[in-house]
Formats: sequence, C-alpha cells, structure tokens
Amino acid sequence: MRNPHPLDVATALEATGPGRLQGQTRADYGNMTGFFGGYVTACLLRAVLEQPRLQDVPIAMTVNFCAPLAEGRFDASVREVRTGRSTQHWLAEISQSSGTAATASIVCGAHRAVWSRQTARIPSAPPYESVPVHAPFARSGWFQQYEMRFIEGAPDFSSPNGDAERSARSTLWLRDAGERPLDHLSLSAMADAFVIRAFVARGKLVPASTVTMTTYFHGTREEIAAQGTRPLLCTADANVFKDGFADQTAQLWGRDGRLLATSNQIVWYKE
Amino acid sequence: MRNPHPLDVATALEATGPGRLQGQTRADYGNMTGFFGGYVTACLLRAVLEQPRLQDVPIAMTVNFCAPLAEGRFDASVREVRTGRSTQHWLAEISQSSGTAATASIVCGAHRAVWSRQTARIPSAPPYESVPVHAPFARSGWFQQYEMRFIEGAPDFSSPNGDAERSARSTLWLRDAGERPLDHLSLSAMADAFVIRAFVARGKLVPASTVTMTTYFHGTREEIAAQGTRPLLCTADANVFKDGFADQTAQLWGRDGRLLATSNQIVWYKE
Repeated sequence: MRNPHPLDVATALEATGPGRLQGQTRADYGNMTGFFGGYVTACLLRAVLEQPRLQDVPIAMTVNFCAPLAEGRFDASVREVRTGRSTQHWLAEISQSSGTAATASIVCGAHRAVWSRQTARIPSAPPYESVPVHAPFARSGWFQQYEMRFIEGAPDFSSPNGDAERSARSTLWLRDAGERPLDHLSLSAMADAFVIRAFVARGKLVPASTVTMTTYFHGTREEIAAQGTRPLLCTADANVFKDGFADQTAQLWGRDGRLLATSNQIVWYKE
Repeated sequence: MRNPHPLDVATALEATGPGRLQGQTRADYGNMTGFFGGYVTACLLRAVLEQPRLQDVPIAMTVNFCAPLAEGRFDASVREVRTGRSTQHWLAEISQSSGTAATASIVCGAHRAVWSRQTARIPSAPPYESVPVHAPFARSGWFQQYEMRFIEGAPDFSSPNGDAERSARSTLWLRDAGERPLDHLSLSAMADAFVIRAFVARGKLVPASTVTMTTYFHGTREEIAAQGTRPLLCTADANVFKDGFADQTAQLWGRDGRLLATSNQIVWYKE
C-alpha cells in the first residue's frame, strides 16, 4: 500500500463537535514564516468538504490570512451560512490560542450541462518533459512538495541588488512532487504555489506575505479528476505593485486546454 | 445645500449596538430580483467603515451573495477578526428575518511610499465627451444611478434569439449619474456595475445572478479622492462560461492611467 500523500496527512482534521474540527501543522508545508498559504487554504477547504451537509462542489473560495499559523495544533470551525437552490454558502475559520489565523468563505454549487464557452486561451508552451525541473527554492517545507518547470519568469536572485525591470509574469508546468491525482483540495493549494510576484519582478527577496486569495474552480469534478497526476500549465502575473500592496493573478490549465481554475490575491510587501 | 446622493441615503446605517447596525433598502438601487449587488456591497463596506476601531483604508473585499435582499429593513453585523501591524481583518454580514443575505470579508491596510510599479496599461479609448451616453437598461432602479458610455461591448438585445458569438468584453466610461466625488464606497459599488457577461456574449437575457465578488482597491485614499466626479474608464470581460457558472473580470481606471481597482466575480446562470 502506498503511503498517504503529505497533503492528505497535513490537512487531516478530527471532528470534535458539530462544525468544529482540530488539525495539526506539518513541517512538510512550512514556509519562511508560518506555513504555506496554499496549505492553510486546503485545511479550510477540507474542513468544509468534510461537512455532512455539503452539497455539490466548490465553485469559489476566498481565504484571508490574518496572522501566521504557528506550529502545532489548530482549531477549525465551519458554519453553513445559507443553502439555496443553486448555491451553498459556507464560512470557515482556523484559530489558535493567539487568535484567528485565517478565515474563508466557500461557495458550492452544481454544474449542469448548459450553454458554455471558454473565452480565455491556453498559452503556448513546450511539452513539460522538455522543460527542466527547477531546483526547489528551499531544502525543506512546501517548496519540496511541488515540481515546477519554468518556461518563463523563473525567480532569479543572481544579481546582488536585484533588478526592478523584470517582467512579473511566470509560465510554468506545476504538479505535486509526490504523485497525487488532482482534486479540489490540491488545486486549492496549487493556486498559491506561485512565487510572490515582487520576488520575480525585482529579482530579490523582500518581506512580503499574502493577505487574501480568491480562487475560482471552473472545472467540473470529473474534469479535475481526469487530470490525474498530469502537470498543470500555469501562468502568474501582476497588474500593479502599489505602495505596499500588490495583486497577483493566476490561471491553472489542464489537459485539452481547459481552464481548471483562476486565482487572484493581494500581497503585502514592505519595501 | 445639495440633496444627499442616493448612494449615501441608501447605505445609511444606524448603529444599534457594538458591531450591530440597521439599514433600509431603497428602490433607487433595486434590481430585477432583489437589489443591485454593488449596493449590497457598499452597505457591507459602510458597516465596516463606520466602526470606531477601523484603521487605514480598504485594500480588498469579498462579498458573497447568499440570497436576494428583500425590500425593507435589514440588520448588519460586523466583527473585527484580527488587527496586526500591517493589516486589519473584518467580517460583515447582512441579514433579514429569512436569514443571511450576504457576507463580506474586508481587509484594511495602510499605503506607504515604497517601491511601486503598474504593470497593466490602460486601454486606449476616445474621450468620454465624444462617446454617447447609453440609455439606461431599465426605467427605475440601479441602472438609473449610473452613466455608462460604451466604447465596445454594449449589451445588444436586438436579435430575437440572441447570438452566442459575440465578444464578452466591454469597455466603457462609467460614473455616478448624480455627481458624487469618488470614494471607496462608490468604487465598491461601481465594481459590480458591469452588465452580466452572459447577457453581452449572448445578446439576450438569461436567468443569472452574481454569487461572489472580490474587489481590490489599488488607489490610495488621496488618488481616489483626486478622481472627483470624473468618469472611470472600465473594462469587463470573462474567461469562461462553464456549465452554469461564469467568471467576470473588471478593471477600473482613473485619471493619469492609474488602475484604481480590479474586481472578479462568479455569476450563476441557468441556461
């Protein structure tokens, strides 16, 4: 039997009462400060996905990162806000003794075979086998959990003082380093797996952290499952870095040029 | 003395206790079903802006539309989730006797004069004086509150059965029909003032409603104020219409080609 994937282990939650769960951080998803935002996101999503009253699939989720998650146990709480004919609205929260670490709103809904059209077009890219794997940015923590193959916009910290003239855009092949068939849980984490745009645009590390992230799941459950362990073609970019806050946009493409998810976030940066 | 603007009247809230407020819907912002989502958004934002512990300015907000707001009084509740050195996180909610109508998360923060760069470029457009004002889509309600001048992608319902081959993109000049200097409140509402993309792309009305909307405020308080009553140049588009849910992207540009806000939403559509 194969060992469980680190994502499944690290996001495991124990129900302690109605709408109440407990989890335990894992070093596998550690970050420079606290934990990988995509890991926190996946924990919040899983807290909702495990509710007995859950209907259909996640369509949209917003996560607000209120404070770094500290190593150790954490409490998760979930509230079913309203369930209508077409959508089900949830709120979720992760807290520790110091207070709330993150909140999330998650909207679920059912896909139906109605008029559809994809306006956006997948960027052209060489096959992933032909693109070299990028060395992880750190020897431990969440960078180890993903395989990234950059087609453009790999972070480059070779210039001692950085360089403020680079493009903020990255295009890359992305997948779990340990094979795991794609689902909403891993997709929600991957939506945050793009290096902070300020690092890319400036060619150096600056103090920065994601403040809020919104992800839309466009693929149906079947389409996401059909992706299997194949890598996603992803783009990440920014519209504006403005006086301490920057945005970040991302697209996650699956097989057959299908847009499986889009994501937006606001990043705080210090200098 | 000038009469108060409809937006200020319709979003007026009376504090009824710590973090508790009451409001009253106004027909000025009525919609085909319920009320204009931008109006609900502005009510939620105002509930937070009026809190005595508010710090700095809104940087990001997500609104989840759980059920149509019914005509009459509504309750608003606000919770300060966490205040850190760089950000302040709020949750807000509007409810009526039938349950929760909408929830919001709002992140505030302080702009500081640090390294900044705008990557996105304002689209070229003819001066707004040269673009004819579009007749409001309805004789009452929220359409009356905005002046729209479409450069491309005006909704066109002249074909009896619609047309599924049109672009989903609109570019328009937008401002309050009644003059009101721009602020975060009006900007939060304007971010939802773009006709549902399915109507534009298909040239017909279909049952549809916004499920969730996320808006990022990139302009500083001073830059937003400096816009005054000048119109904003706006673009709205969609990446994908997919089995009953579509996304919508929007950019709101101010003077000097400055990106004042970006917004994303998910729209439920029925057929």
